[in-house]
Amino acid sequence: MIHRIDRIATELPPPSEPDPAGAAAVQELMGGRFGEMSTFLNYMFQSFNFRNRQGARPFYDLVANIAAEEFGHVELVAAAINTMLSGASPVDGGHAPKASLAPLKGVGNPHHFLAGGQGALPQNSQGRPWNGDYVFSSGDLVEDLTHNFFLETGARNNKLKVYEMVEHPVARALTGYLLVRGGVHQLAYARALERLTGADLMKLFPSPRIPTEKIPECKPHIKRGDHLRLYRFSPNDYLELGAVFNGPHPETGEELIVVDDPPEGVPAHDLPSQPAVFAPDYAPDEIAKIAEKLRTQAGLSKAPTGEVASSSGSKPAARRTKRKPAAARRT
Amino acid sequence: MIHRIDRIATELPPPSEPDPAGAAAVQELMGGRFGEMSTFLNYMFQSFNFRNRQGARPFYDLVANIAAEEFGHVELVAAAINTMLSGASPVDGGHAPKASLAPLKGVGNPHHFLAGGQGALPQNSQGRPWNGDYVFSSGDLVEDLTHNFFLETGARNNKLKVYEMVEHPVARALTGYLLVRGGVHQLAYARALERLTGADLMKLFPSPRIPTEKIPECKPHIKRGDHLRLYRFSPNDYLELGAVFNGPHPETGEELIVVDDPPEGVPAHDLPSQPAVFAPDYAPDEIAKIAEKLRTQAGLSKAPTGEVASSSGSKPAARRTKRKPAAARRT
Amino acid sequence: MIHRIDRIATELPPPSEPDPAGAAAVQELMGGRFGEMSTFLNYMFQSFNFRNRQGARPFYDLVANIAAEEFGHVELVAAAINTMLSGASPVDGGHAPKASLAPLKGVGNPHHFLAGGQGALPQNSQGRPWNGDYVFSSGDLVEDLTHNFFLETGARNNKLKVYEMVEHPVARALTGYLLVRGGVHQLAYARALERLTGADLMKLFPSPRIPTEKIPECKPHIKRGDHLRLYRFSPNDYLELGAVFNGPHPETGEELIVVDDPPEGVPAHDLPSQPAVFAPDYAPDEIAKIAEKLRTQAGLSKAPTGEVASSSGSKPAARRTKRKPAAARRT
Amino acid sequence: MIHRIDRIATELPPPSEPDPAGAAAVQELMGGRFGEMSTFLNYMFQSFNFRNRQGARPFYDLVANIAAEEFGHVELVAAAINTMLSGASPVDGGHAPKASLAPLKGVGNPHHFLAGGQGALPQNSQGRPWNGDYVFSSGDLVEDLTHNFFLETGARNNKLKVYEMVEHPVARALTGYLLVRGGVHQLAYARALERLTGADLMKLFPSPRIPTEKIPECKPHIKRGDHLRLYRFSPNDYLELGAVFNGPHPETGEELIVVDDPPEGVPAHDLPSQPAVFAPDYAPDEIAKIAEKLRTQAGLSKAPTGEVASSSGSKPAARRTKRKPAAARRT
Amino acid sequence: MIHRIDRIATELPPPSEPDPAGAAAVQELMGGRFGEMSTFLNYMFQSFNFRNRQGARPFYDLVANIAAEEFGHVELVAAAINTMLSGASPVDGGHAPKASLAPLKGVGNPHHFLAGGQGALPQNSQGRPWNGDYVFSSGDLVEDLTHNFFLETGARNNKLKVYEMVEHPVARALTGYLLVRGGVHQLAYARALERLTGADLMKLFPSPRIPTEKIPECKPHIKRGDHLRLYRFSPNDYLELGAVFNGPHPETGEELIVVDDPPEGVPAHDLPSQPAVFAPDYAPDEIAKIAEKLRTQAGLSKAPTGEVASSSGSKPAARRTKRKPAAARRT
Amino acid sequence: MIHRIDRIATELPPPSEPDPAGAAAVQELMGGRFGEMSTFLNYMFQSFNFRNRQGARPFYDLVANIAAEEFGHVELVAAAINTMLSGASPVDGGHAPKASLAPLKGVGNPHHFLAGGQGALPQNSQGRPWNGDYVFSSGDLVEDLTHNFFLETGARNNKLKVYEMVEHPVARALTGYLLVRGGVHQLAYARALERLTGADLMKLFPSPRIPTEKIPECKPHIKRGDHLRLYRFSPNDYLELGAVFNGPHPETGEELIVVDDPPEGVPAHDLPSQPAVFAPDYAPDEIAKIAEKLRTQAGLSKAPTGEVASSSGSKPAARRTKRKPAAARRT
Repeated sequence: MIHRIDRIATELPPPSEPDPAGAAAVQELMGGRFGEMSTFLNYMFQSFNFRNRQGARPFYDLVANIAAEEFGHVELVAAAINTMLSGASPVDGGHAPKASLAPLKGVGNPHHFLAGGQGALPQNSQGRPWNGDYVFSSGDLVEDLTHNFFLETGARNNKLKVYEMVEHPVARALTGYLLVRGGVHQLAYARALERLTGADLMKLFPSPRIPTEKIPECKPHIKRGDHLRLYRFSPNDYLELGAVFNGPHPETGEELIVVDDPPEGVPAHDLPSQPAVFAPDYAPDEIAKIAEKLRTQAGLSKAPTGEVASSSGSKPAARRTKRKPAAARRT
Repeated sequence: MIHRIDRIATELPPPSEPDPAGAAAVQELMGGRFGEMSTFLNYMFQSFNFRNRQGARPFYDLVANIAAEEFGHVELVAAAINTMLSGASPVDGGHAPKASLAPLKGVGNPHHFLAGGQGALPQNSQGRPWNGDYVFSSGDLVEDLTHNFFLETGARNNKLKVYEMVEHPVARALTGYLLVRGGVHQLAYARALERLTGADLMKLFPSPRIPTEKIPECKPHIKRGDHLRLYRFSPNDYLELGAVFNGPHPETGEELIVVDDPPEGVPAHDLPSQPAVFAPDYAPDEIAKIAEKLRTQAGLSKAPTGEVASSSGSKPAARRTKRKPAAARRT
Repeated sequence: MIHRIDRIATELPPPSEPDPAGAAAVQELMGGRFGEMSTFLNYMFQSFNFRNRQGARPFYDLVANIAAEEFGHVELVAAAINTMLSGASPVDGGHAPKASLAPLKGVGNPHHFLAGGQGALPQNSQGRPWNGDYVFSSGDLVEDLTHNFFLETGARNNKLKVYEMVEHPVARALTGYLLVRGGVHQLAYARALERLTGADLMKLFPSPRIPTEKIPECKPHIKRGDHLRLYRFSPNDYLELGAVFNGPHPETGEELIVVDDPPEGVPAHDLPSQPAVFAPDYAPDEIAKIAEKLRTQAGLSKAPTGEVASSSGSKPAARRTKRKPAAARRT
Repeated sequence: MIHRIDRIATELPPPSEPDPAGAAAVQELMGGRFGEMSTFLNYMFQSFNFRNRQGARPFYDLVANIAAEEFGHVELVAAAINTMLSGASPVDGGHAPKASLAPLKGVGNPHHFLAGGQGALPQNSQGRPWNGDYVFSSGDLVEDLTHNFFLETGARNNKLKVYEMVEHPVARALTGYLLVRGGVHQLAYARALERLTGADLMKLFPSPRIPTEKIPECKPHIKRGDHLRLYRFSPNDYLELGAVFNGPHPETGEELIVVDDPPEGVPAHDLPSQPAVFAPDYAPDEIAKIAEKLRTQAGLSKAPTGEVASSSGSKPAARRTKRKPAAARRT
Repeated sequence: MIHRIDRIATELPPPSEPDPAGAAAVQELMGGRFGEMSTFLNYMFQSFNFRNRQGARPFYDLVANIAAEEFGHVELVAAAINTMLSGASPVDGGHAPKASLAPLKGVGNPHHFLAGGQGALPQNSQGRPWNGDYVFSSGDLVEDLTHNFFLETGARNNKLKVYEMVEHPVARALTGYLLVRGGVHQLAYARALERLTGADLMKLFPSPRIPTEKIPECKPHIKRGDHLRLYRFSPNDYLELGAVFNGPHPETGEELIVVDDPPEGVPAHDLPSQPAVFAPDYAPDEIAKIAEKLRTQAGLSKAPTGEVASSSGSKPAARRTKRKPAAARRT
Repeated sequence: MIHRIDRIATELPPPSEPDPAGAAAVQELMGGRFGEMSTFLNYMFQSFNFRNRQGARPFYDLVANIAAEEFGHVELVAAAINTMLSGASPVDGGHAPKASLAPLKGVGNPHHFLAGGQGALPQNSQGRPWNGDYVFSSGDLVEDLTHNFFLETGARNNKLKVYEMVEHPVARALTGYLLVRGGVHQLAYARALERLTGADLMKLFPSPRIPTEKIPECKPHIKRGDHLRLYRFSPNDYLELGAVFNGPHPETGEELIVVDDPPEGVPAHDLPSQPAVFAPDYAPDEIAKIAEKLRTQAGLSKAPTGEVASSSGSKPAARRTKRKPAAARRT
């Protein structure tokens, strides 16, 4: 099971100049063979299917825990795409039956506009849907780890190239972060293979052979030490990460670290309505009125309780205190 | 982001008579158009792509929160398939180069054996992979909710039929649970549509038109009240569920309830190694020795720390106390 | 546009012993690369896309008109599959939550039961969906006709093999009919190529090289002359068929014939409810009561007006007289 | 079975400025998940698979009859795409080996030119083929109707967005018409669900929540009353439509109407040859000569008999009189 | 370019008891993600796309040369499947319209019979077609080699499991051979990675962790030394294999060997006609007569010139002498 | 089995102005339904699956031998695409983290840059992967030949249109060559059908109906007589080609010719590194140093031994003498 936290893994810039062609390219990191859906669902299925977990507990914990972080990467890629698409259709007065989408004819992924509401899709940069053939779960631990190292290598390649292709600040913030965190996963699987077989894979790093530190947008994360840390994404479980993830970093020689808490993350931006594509409605204000009424009827606060990034102006007060809804819940 | 909890949503029986043909049928609930991957990833993408969340907060919270529960359903279907496949190849002495898989030729999904390690696949009952075309995320709230109600209706149909086709006790425990919980989600989306538009969909229940209470394996869950409850799967977020999910149940008239904590779940069984398919290895015992050594080297306990269902014999002591690994972690 | 006639192209036997494995094989004739969906949609798209129709009118008329007949073949394959699946789950008392589908685990196409209501699917014999890549519409008339001749050849092969594999009387009646009619289309396209280029393709017949007359189930149709006739499936259009479809039959030397009216067809059987799969409902009788009430309220006859094959007992009186509903319609 | 009528459902403008990028977008209405192939084939399969038709006759008639209208919508989308592609390659002297397609490199759907003859494809706006997974035919009537209502909702969304994206007059004429007619089908399924269950879905209209009457190109059709009418697309069958389709329109309160005849339609334009893509030939004039010769040989009129829209100049005399070919047919 | 040699890589037993279910399983080695089509086409595309070949010549030569051997593996898998399917339909008198395929209903891959002529398909064990997404060709040499090592690991897993599942002597001869040769490729890619990066991957062998020598059918090939040899599949090219492929074998310590000539191979069996599926015809003898006549007319020998395995009785005299056709060719 | 020759079938111009949109279009000739992968793999599977080869030897030889030539066409299309993509990212100093791919956003096939290293893909012009459904191998010889004639017709259409769309000199050289050679194959299959059945297909040529000689880039190949020649791609096998491939050319009346040796081909260009996409590395020079060292260690020449086209400056001395590596190989 999971608990969901309404925060994203790292800060992304707010919407600025829309970039639909860039958003189409970033889809590779979502639904491509090496995209975040693939890393997430590969490790998830491998953990679901893990036999004799107790016997191989450090390895099970490693795979299961990285899976949890990958969820946040899927979410982050979606947030980036959504941000880059914000404003691509006119926000004010851009309602049908105006030709609000005319400038987008032939630009980017047509499903961003025709099928979705300027939102992320489970597709790659060619508009082809992610599919279950991208999941490898042989059940053979050495093999699954070999796959995972390869998968992370392919993912690193894709992130680097999306970085080079898409200069939009949101894409850069995204890839800068993912390169650092994906690099940790690439390393974790190589180290696990080493622990299991005695092979020495460290000289394969970096792969592709450009050092991560050369990417400007990676530097803040490296400076913070995030290239060394494996976070434990669970309140009580997956305690044996440190039995595998330890020793020196292959490129810097620094000691690897298991952080015994999930990262705190940040609230996401509340992205603006795009009425030309009916997201969330042809007349979004009516929904807001209904929502307020429903909250009041249910004895909740009049204002929305969710936390969003400050640029949206509606950040509620404190965070990190366990909150219950205003009205006593019937249990 | 998510936190992962190493427990499954409800108790499943331990491995008994293997049922590979049954496991192949249960895959429909995993990777079919209406399977749990679909419910999980539909709601996940809808929540990722939700614009003007603050304005429509009760609806955002509802979709985002149900997505979190669905993750646990994906996991549960995987656990059921894995359990049903346990023992399908000989557990003792069933190593290659023996013809350990010969009795499985032409039985069930060949990828359960040839591609995987007698493990769940992101495929449907025909062995076709789940794909991103099964995700609907229009961004239009009324439309997405209309879809979700339809999706849950199709999912309920599939669960009922898998129930009728597969008598294996694990499949029955699975479908009994999913029918009750899926029914809550079906209702939640219908209610959300009502709140948003004023339409009255309650006479559409039950759909298909067999009452859930007729299924024996559903009864314990109904008795416990799980047909009325929407759990909040987050420590701090998604507080506005109650603004939408309230009022009477369409079939029983009982009041709907928001439970302000996730369900506790139960530990999963530690399913036995299947050496004929190299899961987790041709010689699984060697991994266990390596694991123990690694734990010791890392200053962790000698015994595995993970919690598994008692039939596997290695359940650790207490639960629900926030644990840190034995060795101080370097942060 | 089309007008729809609630009759099928030829008589099929009523439900008898169900044959789910046979029905799975017959799906090849529905959704396979050479199935009836392919012939129907290939010719349909070719006719939609036909440029300079006036200039090439006899060929346009030929393709457009055969397309119309192919619709009836899709319908007929569906009727056959549905009939063969009737009774595969228990008809009386076979309601959920009984294990009514347990004997069908591992038999045939699981989607016949888990996804559908023991009904035909747009899939092939492997359970893979028909897809648009099976349509060839180059716009080049010679090329499209070359394709169509090849397509009919492949289709004839498939029909012959399904004939050999499935002995069920419905499958035999189906393939016997389709072989004769498909043979006419194969010939029509070869003749059209001859008319257009001067090439002589007649020695390619029969292809595969077994004469149609060797198939017992084809004989009644041959005896009736249906191997020589191209029907005009339109009240007023496609008048130029005879400019192409004429001359001797390549195998028998008999003169080819254009019939200036569609065949009359026969009413289909009203296949029984299959409550185990909720087709058309968990409690089908309730629908019948609602239907009767709705008819009465609308000023229509109390009894259903539709015509079905007599074995179902509810055949209404006369046919072929233009009927209007009992109540005057508001126009 | 069907009879085919060589007329299209509504008038489209003749070819003007070609718009290949627009044509690529309009493909979403053809082969997208919610395109006309989907509506047509969903209802077709549901009618094929309908069990106990006599018992549920009004509903069977409704689904079967709407399917027939949808065929005409598939045809209309094809006509629109073909018209928009006319002239995209040079019509005069644009023969190979000239670089007649060079300006089209990187524009629109490459298969419009490389695979087809500037013709419609069974693909969506991304160039992905329609496939059978888009058909839902559970056999459960309530469920199928729920699906159909959802399908029409998604289809309405797609039409509105294509309207906004593609300003070409043919695309506008197309979407204006389809929005009105699709709206009738959306309503018909909602009404059927109401009749069957007692639920009240009328407040879900319009969905998406923009009223159809706001679209200028819809207004003539609304003015004519086409938003209220369900046509019976059959000479003798499907008589019970009025038992379901009645009562007030949810938005206007006007009474719904069953029209007991199909709409008359209009002849399509005879779109010009595109010799650069060999449609219908590298040297189209030769075909015309052959055709004339074949007609003469067969005793038919020297001039083509087909009816096309007047802008093409070759409209034959009267319509609506049952015609037989000039030469007596051998039957 | 290639020159084709009409011999297969190793001897397979002649047809014996047919095994259609086994043949369906063996398809995984043909068209599965890790089948021989994948190894062949991955290395082929990588060699096509190899930039700066001169600079990286030893690696280019290695990849390009292994690709050539893999072609022979695709061919060998096809030969095995064809042999296992021989006799599955009656060979004598098994012509249509007899129900010659009735015993095969529901057995194995239906396309072996309905679509093909009891022949191999580009599909996997589930009947799903091989597709280009299975090709990885990043252009980055380290990455491509990492992939290739992983691919060979997955392929070894699949071969081992097919070995365990299918006891048919042809399947055993096939997998015994492929395991030895695939093992060499797995090693070659690991060694190439070592040479390029300095990493030491040898402790990853064997993977899966069962030694190849435990498989009885591998032993003759090992005894012959084929587990150590890389053959050069070219008369004049790919001379630098030995710069990469050298050093000790990771499991046995024996020295690796480059053989400077392709293996000689053996003639394939001439598999018998299967008239029930029209392979090669409904009346195969007629083709033989035509062939003989054509040879005579062309001034060739009366008897066929091709070499086939002796069990088929028609092996021509000498081999390995460069032959020209009997009649002088016009050049 | 095959022997691989490190030469391509015809000369292509060296890299000049890159044309990524053109390269995306040329992909149709690679991975499209009628691309060279299809011709290659269709004939390959047909030859693998050919039953009673001795009886039908001239036909087996024909299909098997054309398959071998088609391999070279796949390779040639890849070479063309790779050449057209060379230089699309900056060659000097175009390393990450620069935005070296920014000008390519939204241009051509994004996988050329994001997934591959500016290399060819097994995809069509829409970026969809080639798949095994494009292979037709019925086992019925007449049918397979009918298919092959159709396939070559469709392939000729595609080549003509790519010719018209892409003016890049490499694309023109490619299509000019393929049209001539594909025309020979189209003819070979038609002739085979004639020989087998007695039908006369010659009047179907040319199809599409533009004569090949009208294409300027075809003329040199026609002048050389390559439109008349079938090469035997084997040192010793497939000797009976001349029993089928003979008689006059349908358009020119010249006599067809079997050439008893493969064409010599030409060395390919050694395409430049593209460091922005890591092809073959982020720092390609390092690989060259490693390669040189490895050669030296293995006792091979210091300089690379491979032959490449002279424009790359590193062409080694003589060709066509059987070479062995410098160091004695251990056999």
